[in-house]
Amino acid sequence: MTMINAYDPASGTNLAGSEPDMIMRRQNLLGPAYRLFYANPVHVVRGEGVWLYDPDGKAYLDVYNNVACVGHCHPHVVAALTKQASLLNTHTRYLHETVLDYAERLLGYFSAEIGHVMFTCTGSEANDLALRVAKAHTGGTGFIITDFAYHGVTEATAGMSPSLGPAMVLGEHVRKVPAPDAYREGGRDVGAVLADNVRKAIDDMRANGIKPAGLLVDTIFSSDGVFTDPQGFLSGAVDAIHESGGLFIADEVQSGFGRTGERMWGFQRHEIMPDLVTMGKPMGNGHPVAGMAARPEILAEFGQRLRYFNTFGGNAVSAAAGMAVLDIIEGEKLRDNARVVGAHLRSGLESLALRYPIIGDIRSAGLFVGVELVRCRASKEPARDETARVVNGLRERRVLISAAGPSANILKIRPPLVFSIDNADLFLTALDETLAEVGVS
Amino acid sequence: MTMINAYDPASGTNLAGSEPDMIMRRQNLLGPAYRLFYANPVHVVRGEGVWLYDPDGKAYLDVYNNVACVGHCHPHVVAALTKQASLLNTHTRYLHETVLDYAERLLGYFSAEIGHVMFTCTGSEANDLALRVAKAHTGGTGFIITDFAYHGVTEATAGMSPSLGPAMVLGEHVRKVPAPDAYREGGRDVGAVLADNVRKAIDDMRANGIKPAGLLVDTIFSSDGVFTDPQGFLSGAVDAIHESGGLFIADEVQSGFGRTGERMWGFQRHEIMPDLVTMGKPMGNGHPVAGMAARPEILAEFGQRLRYFNTFGGNAVSAAAGMAVLDIIEGEKLRDNARVVGAHLRSGLESLALRYPIIGDIRSAGLFVGVELVRCRASKEPARDETARVVNGLRERRVLISAAGPSANILKIRPPLVFSIDNADLFLTALDETLAEVGVS
Repeated sequence: MTMINAYDPASGTNLAGSEPDMIMRRQNLLGPAYRLFYANPVHVVRGEGVWLYDPDGKAYLDVYNNVACVGHCHPHVVAALTKQASLLNTHTRYLHETVLDYAERLLGYFSAEIGHVMFTCTGSEANDLALRVAKAHTGGTGFIITDFAYHGVTEATAGMSPSLGPAMVLGEHVRKVPAPDAYREGGRDVGAVLADNVRKAIDDMRANGIKPAGLLVDTIFSSDGVFTDPQGFLSGAVDAIHESGGLFIADEVQSGFGRTGERMWGFQRHEIMPDLVTMGKPMGNGHPVAGMAARPEILAEFGQRLRYFNTFGGNAVSAAAGMAVLDIIEGEKLRDNARVVGAHLRSGLESLALRYPIIGDIRSAGLFVGVELVRCRASKEPARDETARVVNGLRERRVLISAAGPSANILKIRPPLVFSIDNADLFLTALDETLAEVGVS
Repeated sequence: MTMINAYDPASGTNLAGSEPDMIMRRQNLLGPAYRLFYANPVHVVRGEGVWLYDPDGKAYLDVYNNVACVGHCHPHVVAALTKQASLLNTHTRYLHETVLDYAERLLGYFSAEIGHVMFTCTGSEANDLALRVAKAHTGGTGFIITDFAYHGVTEATAGMSPSLGPAMVLGEHVRKVPAPDAYREGGRDVGAVLADNVRKAIDDMRANGIKPAGLLVDTIFSSDGVFTDPQGFLSGAVDAIHESGGLFIADEVQSGFGRTGERMWGFQRHEIMPDLVTMGKPMGNGHPVAGMAARPEILAEFGQRLRYFNTFGGNAVSAAAGMAVLDIIEGEKLRDNARVVGAHLRSGLESLALRYPIIGDIRSAGLFVGVELVRCRASKEPARDETARVVNGLRERRVLISAAGPSANILKIRPPLVFSIDNADLFLTALDETLAEVGVS
């Protein structure tokens, strides 16, 4: 979620060739809370597959958007939306089959312990609901998150999203632990370190009269900097929260739906079983649908005492869009594609690393890739400014990525799952040129 | 939001002719937090205009759904969704015109003081954002709501929604005031009473070290029981919160978009000017789009310090759906229709009241109508059970409404805005028969 060079109206630099009138109009209408990507923002009018097009018909390679996971404007999703929106679009207080068919199919991607799924419209709402359920089940209020986590924009989830910036004050019941960073932790066992930090956070809560409710983790640590390996590094932390009576909540909003290759969910790479799983962004390929899957025993208390109704969540059109996305993930074998193209991309990045010492580390799972840029491989000094130059330089080559991490020095590479070997090669060539131009070696 | 006779699987009563297998399947998949309307839930497979259809092709008159405000599956909305979903569906960190055109058009429905609009996916998210903005602007944390308010399902907004039930514990920083109930307040000036109660709530906050942040009011008091008159009754309360340094937040999620007849927003009936306005349900005719409009000076602090990004909020398809709804509200003159048909409906209800003393009070603005049922007009004892029988009796006549208020004794009548005089007559006939059957006179 880290923003590179949000457009600054005061400086107004780098806007030759962009759309200054549109930017001004946007600020006038939407106000000061919105940010744009890139020093030279991109104006898009059309999307297809891995491509976005500007008003001049110029194509941009989308290497960042995991919402359009099956490709921009996939005709099967559009057809499903159109058909269902023409037929019926209503809520879950009447019976309709679409939401049940979708729920059943979605639960098929979990092991039997996860028995229920509830629907919301956004990942923020899904995480917010998970927090409420965890509190109702445990009777606790304390949550543990990672240092630079992002979990949403509601009051409760923003309060557990330190990546929103220093002005985002976390709640008194929230404790942060460092993400499992095998690059900067040197040779230490990052899983053991994480478990130890979770235990310390639990002890600190207890010392302050706070009962633990849960450990909330994005299982690929996207905002923290994309931490993928060694597989299994989460198991000690999950044991620690369970021993305290708290729940393990897997935030799969970014890592879910085949993104990490082969399997459906990020947590599956670590051979752990969550109590609650939240899902969002890619779930409807852009249609606002999200959800939370749960172990039934954990929902019981919340369901009886508090009930839940989300007006649009699980409506017939949302369910149809979600179903179409699953059709495509299966039909186009997108998990295999994420694995195969992800491996190719990684291999290409490793070749670039032989020529560009600025590449300090490459971390990936399927088509979720983080490339950490450093000024010096020995000191690992974050190459923040250089990373911004790379992201903006790629944009000038019409290749769209972003950056992550507290120092915004990690290239975040996360294309639609239909990304091909040719697309990957095109990206690698553009990155090669950009790194050469940025001139840090 | 009050539920009448949510299906109770333990009793299993009244299910002859309904879909018991589907209900069981639903409970197995979605879990215990979901509720259905009616003792005999309705299974729908198709919607068109004011009609919903079951699998046997039987038509149900929808006199309740304000989400499908321009009618179920309106072809203009479907066409707009299809066109935009085929072309581009992306977020607000790239420039796209659709969201700006929609923002501009939407702001045209406010006076010049309201200068910005931000987009979310649900009314819950819009209210949650408004709370965050109010806190950032005022530096306060205290909010005032009404006794049986509903404002959303996020942690923060559910904590300001006592209508979710006694298990929903409100925050320490939340104060409740009685809604302006001119029926039960007898001849008192409900506006003055409300203002007085707001002042007392502010004093109580201050006595407890809480700085006021805002007064959050659904301007038609839907869950409290639909309170519409006398027009102007909110102005003293708005003055009171402003004097305290807090903001007035108008929750237009239910009352907005022409529902109340003639004008676009419920607050306009009371000649007041909010600081923040939240919108939702009818905004996209079922597509998940919602938003918050604001005075620019109030957004400044939040925008600079905290920024806001909602992945799906204001995406190109949401904006296109919202625009299509505005096209239809204008093109089909739906505000006029709400006024004219609302007046006809009210007049018919008044005729029924001459014959059925159970009708204690009729309150309405446009096509938002509350009919309070009482066991005795003198004592005004709430006719809770009878109201449930009326709602379920209408359902057996394939006419869909619900009930509101802390005693669930107020018929909540809120059809799509395309409801016609003929539809109203059909409803009135069914209500007449049902009241006769219920047999309280």
